[in-house]
Amino acid sequence: MLNNFKRIPAHIGVIPDGNRRWAVGQKMNKGDGYHYGIAPGFQLYDLCLDIGVKELTLYGFTTDNTKRPADQKEAFQKACVDAVMGLTKRDAELLVLGNTKSPSFPQELLPFTERVRFGDGRLKVNFLVNYGWEWDLRQKDGIASADISRIDLVIRWGGRMRLSGFLPVQSVYADIYVLDELWPDFLPEQLYKAIEWYQSQDITLGG
Amino acid sequence: MLNNFKRIPAHIGVIPDGNRRWAVGQKMNKGDGYHYGIAPGFQLYDLCLDIGVKELTLYGFTTDNTKRPADQKEAFQKACVDAVMGLTKRDAELLVLGNTKSPSFPQELLPFTERVRFGDGRLKVNFLVNYGWEWDLRQKDGIASADISRIDLVIRWGGRMRLSGFLPVQSVYADIYVLDELWPDFLPEQLYKAIEWYQSQDITLGG
Repeated sequence: MLNNFKRIPAHIGVIPDGNRRWAVGQKMNKGDGYHYGIAPGFQLYDLCLDIGVKELTLYGFTTDNTKRPADQKEAFQKACVDAVMGLTKRDAELLVLGNTKSPSFPQELLPFTERVRFGDGRLKVNFLVNYGWEWDLRQKDGIASADISRIDLVIRWGGRMRLSGFLPVQSVYADIYVLDELWPDFLPEQLYKAIEWYQSQDITLGG
Repeated sequence: MLNNFKRIPAHIGVIPDGNRRWAVGQKMNKGDGYHYGIAPGFQLYDLCLDIGVKELTLYGFTTDNTKRPADQKEAFQKACVDAVMGLTKRDAELLVLGNTKSPSFPQELLPFTERVRFGDGRLKVNFLVNYGWEWDLRQKDGIASADISRIDLVIRWGGRMRLSGFLPVQSVYADIYVLDELWPDFLPEQLYKAIEWYQSQDITLGG
């Protein structure tokens, strides 16, 4: 597909939902789905670079998610670590944001909790890891996510029409597009469909 | 339609958008649309009582909206005052929430900025008037909307798929349903359609 969008969202937020449902559909254990969500993330990164998106925020896992069974928890923690490590080999200005003071935060990711530039740093990538919306909003000096800009377009996979605590402040004016497809079934067409839809949304910011 | 929903949202948030587009479609001035949004609000109130909803929050106008032309601003201020006055004649536990320290806040509504019970107070009704999400979140002692509970279902009229700053904290886990119809064209079927859709959404709260 030719990239001839007139209106490019500067900042896309991604809620990559449906990994567990996908695994069940493949007759795997629920937690096995997360591994299959890593490659789609890199594909998405490549496409965003190509389209001219400036910032990309990925919903890794939340403090609420950590209440899930231990094998699932370990699986999504590992998937996030693998994804972040993959980004360090690409052209990204990377920020991992989440509650580092809880044992659920993978220690391997501590070096990336201040923004670090890799390669030519062509895309700002924010990865939410052990993130909680209450934790984000209830900091002493403003919000924890102050270094993340306003989001133009939130794309959610897996059919649920909700934000599930995803960056409440940055998402206040975001247009939200929901795809029924499960995240491990990611295809470029799905991203194009969301950006195509975004072309017809007007920006008002309440004015 | 018989009301035989199994899963009733305890708290519905309503974004009654499309008043200006409706007025243009009727060859009226943009601001004239707001007046025609009042009667649908009372109809919605009656239906929510009937269905068994416990709390209803209506998006009146925001501090951002007050940047619109003066005639429109006066029109939506008046519509909000008329709507709130109408609610004082019904069975509602009414709370008007918004920034009372700005001149855009209608003085007539000051008596309702602490929750007041009218009639049998059968439905909690929150009316956001001169509300701003930043104002809400940036209070010294927590949030300004602390007396408003978590929202289960947000219904937005007018086709836009976004929250537009509507109660970011209470909406974190809300299911969001968007109707293409413009708010002054409200029909009971539209509310039923939203609640019907809500039946098939699972609650996970991130777990």
